[in-house]
Amino acid sequence: MLTTTPHLFDDATRVAAGDSRWSGHTSDDYWAFVGPFGGVTASTMLRAVMEHPQREGDPLAVTVNFCALIAQGTFDLDVRLIKANRSTQHWSVELTQGGADVATFATAVFAVRRPSWSYQPATFPDAPPFETVKPYSTRSLKMSWVRQYDFRFVEGEPQLGLAPHAAPAGAFSKLWIGDTLPRKIDVLSLLSMSDAFFGRIFHVRNEFVPFGTVSLTTYFHAGADDLAAENISHILATADARIFHRSYGDQTGELWSPDGRLLATTTQMAYFKA
Amino acid sequence: MLTTTPHLFDDATRVAAGDSRWSGHTSDDYWAFVGPFGGVTASTMLRAVMEHPQREGDPLAVTVNFCALIAQGTFDLDVRLIKANRSTQHWSVELTQGGADVATFATAVFAVRRPSWSYQPATFPDAPPFETVKPYSTRSLKMSWVRQYDFRFVEGEPQLGLAPHAAPAGAFSKLWIGDTLPRKIDVLSLLSMSDAFFGRIFHVRNEFVPFGTVSLTTYFHAGADDLAAENISHILATADARIFHRSYGDQTGELWSPDGRLLATTTQMAYFKA
Repeated sequence: MLTTTPHLFDDATRVAAGDSRWSGHTSDDYWAFVGPFGGVTASTMLRAVMEHPQREGDPLAVTVNFCALIAQGTFDLDVRLIKANRSTQHWSVELTQGGADVATFATAVFAVRRPSWSYQPATFPDAPPFETVKPYSTRSLKMSWVRQYDFRFVEGEPQLGLAPHAAPAGAFSKLWIGDTLPRKIDVLSLLSMSDAFFGRIFHVRNEFVPFGTVSLTTYFHAGADDLAAENISHILATADARIFHRSYGDQTGELWSPDGRLLATTTQMAYFKA
Repeated sequence: MLTTTPHLFDDATRVAAGDSRWSGHTSDDYWAFVGPFGGVTASTMLRAVMEHPQREGDPLAVTVNFCALIAQGTFDLDVRLIKANRSTQHWSVELTQGGADVATFATAVFAVRRPSWSYQPATFPDAPPFETVKPYSTRSLKMSWVRQYDFRFVEGEPQLGLAPHAAPAGAFSKLWIGDTLPRKIDVLSLLSMSDAFFGRIFHVRNEFVPFGTVSLTTYFHAGADDLAAENISHILATADARIFHRSYGDQTGELWSPDGRLLATTTQMAYFKA
């Protein structure tokens, strides 16, 4: 059942309208190790563009660069339409607090998605239905954001709390992700979920190490109307990593609708100390 | 043999120093269908940061959004250090011509890459050595940029010029890429090569259709000193696509050193008309 009352996610990503200057606030419900969960920060910045009166079309490509820690409280969003063409728009959003340096910097390409030849070479990952998979217990984890998601691992469930692996384990995970309080998937929650994988290094080493996403890029392969028609509240996701080297590692991910449509793909670079 | 005389690529990506205002020029040697080859535009924008007196560290993540056509001739680059931390820097570069709207917009994260635990779960693709693979003939192609590269296909060589495929073919390619006039691989040429795959849709349909990259993101997994130590003039690359839908398709790619080190990964969204 999808909720119709205000959802924590909508509260966490709420923005107040300005002309080019918008504002938002961090959410204690979506807190990570030392700052807000990056997925919600990204979605809040995207929301400011989505709600901007000049916005046309759907998000196509979003890149978020995490420049500095965001403190608990309010922040300003400087939203700028860099260039508009007939069917695309290029936006930038800068997040600042109290007039200090930019803490998060995002660019977003929007497009009016016209009908075209369509072809999906990617293969829908095999998985038992969402309802039949055991939810992952987040009780032992201190970060509040993980409790806002219903993770159901099909492959690569982390065994955090046990001893670190002697040799590196696989970096691949396959899991269902939904909001704990079910919420219909839209571009905002999809962007947030694209950053809702646990750090690949935690999977590979089976231990927490200092970690932080530096740059996140997510591509949308479905229009807002495609998503609305799907009418879903969870996605099937895969995540993997290719390399950890000199304090940085990558992550790739795919986000699928339960009936096999590729909704979004994502990649990120993250800092680690190990 | 690596050249020590000025290389076309260095001429094509040359920038003139300013404070925050730099300038560059398009190159007829790297021309695509209706504008400059995006890889060289990206590298020129990165070069302005590389040569900036405040730059510290190596590029880690670069995103380039292609907003509008770039006309033949000179352009201005507005280079801005958005935020500097102890070991990372966040830059933006805006390319304009004649005071008009932004035509290309790039963000770059730089990092001083410290030693760390290192692990490469990605598998080095099998391939016969560069020297034993036949160069791809670019004679029938009008775009000048393709002649600046020595493409040697191991898998997925396009058969452009023959009839379009009746059913979609595979989107995967594996190939060696080097500069036609060999040039030691550095971060600049690596970024350019990350955009030097033929549009995936050309492979899948075996025909040219109107096509243009909208957003490109490349991650560097080797420091400048790692690259210098490799001392190579060609890379082994793979490229693939996951979906083509409503006028946009994606591409993913990996760029490997000949001895099996993952140097860079890349992804892009491109417009197509089909």
